[in-house]
Amino acid sequence: MRTLPSYLVGTWQQPQTGEGDRRAELLNPATEAPLAVVGAARELDRAVAHGRDVGGPALRAMTIAARGEMLQKLAKKLHEHREELIEIAIASGGNTRGDAKFDIDGATGVLAAYARLARELGDDPWIVEDEAAPIMRTSKIRVQHVLLPLRGVAVHINAFNFPAWGMVGKAAVAWLAGVPVLSKPATSTSLLAHRIAELIVASGLVPEGAFQLLMGSAGDLLDHLGAQDVVAFTGSAGVGALIRGHAKLVAHNTRVNIEADSLNAVVVGPDVEEGSELFDLVVRDCVIEMTQKAGQKCTATRRILVPQERLEELRSALVERLDEVAGRTGDPASKGVRMGPLATAQQLADAREGVARLLADDGVSIVRGDPARAEFTDVPAGKGYFFEPILLEATPERAADPGASVHALEVFGPVSTLLPYDGSVEQAAALVAHGGGSLVTTVYSDSRKFTAGAVAALGPFLGRLVLADEKHAGGSMAPGCVFPQGNHGGPGRAGGGAELGGLGGLRLYLQRTAIQGGAGQLARVFGKKK
Amino acid sequence: MRTLPSYLVGTWQQPQTGEGDRRAELLNPATEAPLAVVGAARELDRAVAHGRDVGGPALRAMTIAARGEMLQKLAKKLHEHREELIEIAIASGGNTRGDAKFDIDGATGVLAAYARLARELGDDPWIVEDEAAPIMRTSKIRVQHVLLPLRGVAVHINAFNFPAWGMVGKAAVAWLAGVPVLSKPATSTSLLAHRIAELIVASGLVPEGAFQLLMGSAGDLLDHLGAQDVVAFTGSAGVGALIRGHAKLVAHNTRVNIEADSLNAVVVGPDVEEGSELFDLVVRDCVIEMTQKAGQKCTATRRILVPQERLEELRSALVERLDEVAGRTGDPASKGVRMGPLATAQQLADAREGVARLLADDGVSIVRGDPARAEFTDVPAGKGYFFEPILLEATPERAADPGASVHALEVFGPVSTLLPYDGSVEQAAALVAHGGGSLVTTVYSDSRKFTAGAVAALGPFLGRLVLADEKHAGGSMAPGCVFPQGNHGGPGRAGGGAELGGLGGLRLYLQRTAIQGGAGQLARVFGKKK
Repeated sequence: MRTLPSYLVGTWQQPQTGEGDRRAELLNPATEAPLAVVGAARELDRAVAHGRDVGGPALRAMTIAARGEMLQKLAKKLHEHREELIEIAIASGGNTRGDAKFDIDGATGVLAAYARLARELGDDPWIVEDEAAPIMRTSKIRVQHVLLPLRGVAVHINAFNFPAWGMVGKAAVAWLAGVPVLSKPATSTSLLAHRIAELIVASGLVPEGAFQLLMGSAGDLLDHLGAQDVVAFTGSAGVGALIRGHAKLVAHNTRVNIEADSLNAVVVGPDVEEGSELFDLVVRDCVIEMTQKAGQKCTATRRILVPQERLEELRSALVERLDEVAGRTGDPASKGVRMGPLATAQQLADAREGVARLLADDGVSIVRGDPARAEFTDVPAGKGYFFEPILLEATPERAADPGASVHALEVFGPVSTLLPYDGSVEQAAALVAHGGGSLVTTVYSDSRKFTAGAVAALGPFLGRLVLADEKHAGGSMAPGCVFPQGNHGGPGRAGGGAELGGLGGLRLYLQRTAIQGGAGQLARVFGKKK
Repeated sequence: MRTLPSYLVGTWQQPQTGEGDRRAELLNPATEAPLAVVGAARELDRAVAHGRDVGGPALRAMTIAARGEMLQKLAKKLHEHREELIEIAIASGGNTRGDAKFDIDGATGVLAAYARLARELGDDPWIVEDEAAPIMRTSKIRVQHVLLPLRGVAVHINAFNFPAWGMVGKAAVAWLAGVPVLSKPATSTSLLAHRIAELIVASGLVPEGAFQLLMGSAGDLLDHLGAQDVVAFTGSAGVGALIRGHAKLVAHNTRVNIEADSLNAVVVGPDVEEGSELFDLVVRDCVIEMTQKAGQKCTATRRILVPQERLEELRSALVERLDEVAGRTGDPASKGVRMGPLATAQQLADAREGVARLLADDGVSIVRGDPARAEFTDVPAGKGYFFEPILLEATPERAADPGASVHALEVFGPVSTLLPYDGSVEQAAALVAHGGGSLVTTVYSDSRKFTAGAVAALGPFLGRLVLADEKHAGGSMAPGCVFPQGNHGGPGRAGGGAELGGLGGLRLYLQRTAIQGGAGQLARVFGKKK
């Protein structure tokens, strides 16, 4: 079986084979067929130094426009290999074809979006952020802010659910900022990340040292980082806390960005009536967000807030649609399958345990789905890590309880809970806030008052708030889809991070420096701001 | 002797007097005369809850404009008490009259600057940051970012050197953002902070719960914070690391901003000739930055980079001017005294030890000053925590050594080191970078090439870069003066923080939320951006 090498310090390196060097086998999660093996690399200090000393200077020697062109060409290159990548995602990630496209097209989409942004950013070694402002009424001294690339490496530790989008999206932003990347994919689905890395390296588009790939464990990587490096992590809150609290990173005030578990919600407004396009959109979005990638998305909907008087009709509509998906859950390589398996045996065990923990709260029950179901479409009995869609429901009392498990525990699978509420924006905000910070929440309403109230009351707990109304229902995108133009990240439980969001995303890799000097002197150095 | 109460949960509270509740005596650092006593408060969970539940809603119920007016009125109120506050600063902080004004006028200056900013920010419960951007070419869905006040408390842990500016400046920004403040002054100089807190509370300008004062130890305060709270700390790197790594703050992804020790530099450009106004400015600035507040400023100059061929003339000019200050170092209450004592006996011991550690490196020597000097103007022999100006000098070899103590150890007193370099921007950048990140560095040069090169090469290691040229020499401000319009904070050793800097400063207290929706829907909620 193939062993997947790391790409470090300019060469493809097979894993270490010494005592204590553990190997991991990558499996097809639908069939449990082995696909490849990964192991640990060593001398990660050399990789960090290579990024800093070779990759960083090479990227900074390119203009911002040239870095943008690099992204554009890379998007084209990956798109040329789209079919091959989709096949790998289906085999190694349990993805349906739709899931795979979502991940892979998302990756090229971020490259293209940041390539477009590059055209607005000028051609200096810095980005001028604002106009020169006087420091005192009577003084000719001004202050102006510029953004400058940090001189370290960007360490990207990605999650298993988006091996393409996670790796390429993070890299696109760091590269445009002028910072070299050392990317560590999550092991279970790293076959896709590895193939993309091969394409990136073979393309010759990215300067040597600006892209390195670490397969397997992160080892002692973080011990080698310093004040000018950046860590961007996507994954569980537990690992996130280990990274944020890592003694070396704390000692150096190394920048750390975390995207973690989050209990994303949707809020059905009190004005949404059955039969409206907006009601149908709620149902469509909830089903997509529960079942796309088998619910393994950090932006998937976990809590469905519905006015008490709409509960019955929403429940029955969701059950009907989820039944359809449940009937077509199986090997994603088979035609007609709508939902594939979870990524690993551990994910399956965690999902089952998670549902049991949600059900342990009084007032929480299963509305549809069987966590123990064992037979799926085109799958040999007992094989694969399948979990069918599970819809739970809480009583209004449990829904309003800040200590309820539904506000604290994310089940990372096709699982969501109906939470009846009184239809007021105040109670909706309280329930959303009980989640402790989320990546995204969606509000469905045609009421300007309800919507504006939601912005003020829900916004502080969210990285992104999606507003959906009847007029735009036809063109609305499911809320779990992350666009490079919008902030991705959320406070508190969601990790406290901020990625993407246009220029905002670059800030993670840039130092914002105030430049203070005479008005004429600043104009001489920076010229006029465009 | 007076015991200084905390102001918590709406009342002035005397410290706890139980077993284990330690007291601290505040002393006049020039005479060692006792001034007051502080002790520890308890039930800090109630104070945090009071801020969140009473202060936050009250501030958010005010418009941004109303919060700005509050700042303006508070500036006026403090200014009315300026003479009284100056007297307290002289007695309790070892400040000269000039030092005291620098601190107190700095405080009112930040209030006034953020009051002016308020007028540009509109009157909504949010600040609209950008224009709505299309998420895809063919879609009517847009995304737009708004800034919303976090729902927690801002815990401000301030340093001893700026009891007025530190406390009031941090509070001004949090208040304008709409976030209540719980302020903990550094104990040794807390008499001034306490008096200002009395004035703030008595003014009735700040709504109840939006300002609380914790005297003495921080106790278990941080244990009570969560995802919507903010900690802003100014002080030593060691305490900063304890806060950043605090298990509760890490677990909740609580926002932490740190301003820590930093090895600020000045770079004398190769074109600066003796006799020029710019050379005189170098000398003036270095003397101010070494001796103002007896060098106890986080922005004070610690490293003076000078081209080898200018070393002798700069050294002799500095020695001459420092001799003058040394001759007028003593009790700041006495007329004609130019420099007062360090703040505490511990600071004095640390400064003496620090100089000894710098001198332990081969190639570092004292150019002027006696760390053991014991007699000072109008001070009884052996009293007070006095330390005269000390100028050190390193050989070019030691200056270029990344492992030299001068690049790693900040002596928090009137101490700076001459570092000869080759006059190239590359070597200047390397030496500045050896400091691991600084709050501020100043470049003196009339060369556009040298200056622009410095922006690109030094900028990533700095929070602020001051450019000084011959033309603006007359109106230039000493680099240690922090203006609210410019970013304050620096990467790495400087803490990795960002405060002030106009709107940038508010971001610490605001959630940036992407609002996604139909173009017309966003326009309906937000109106047009001004």
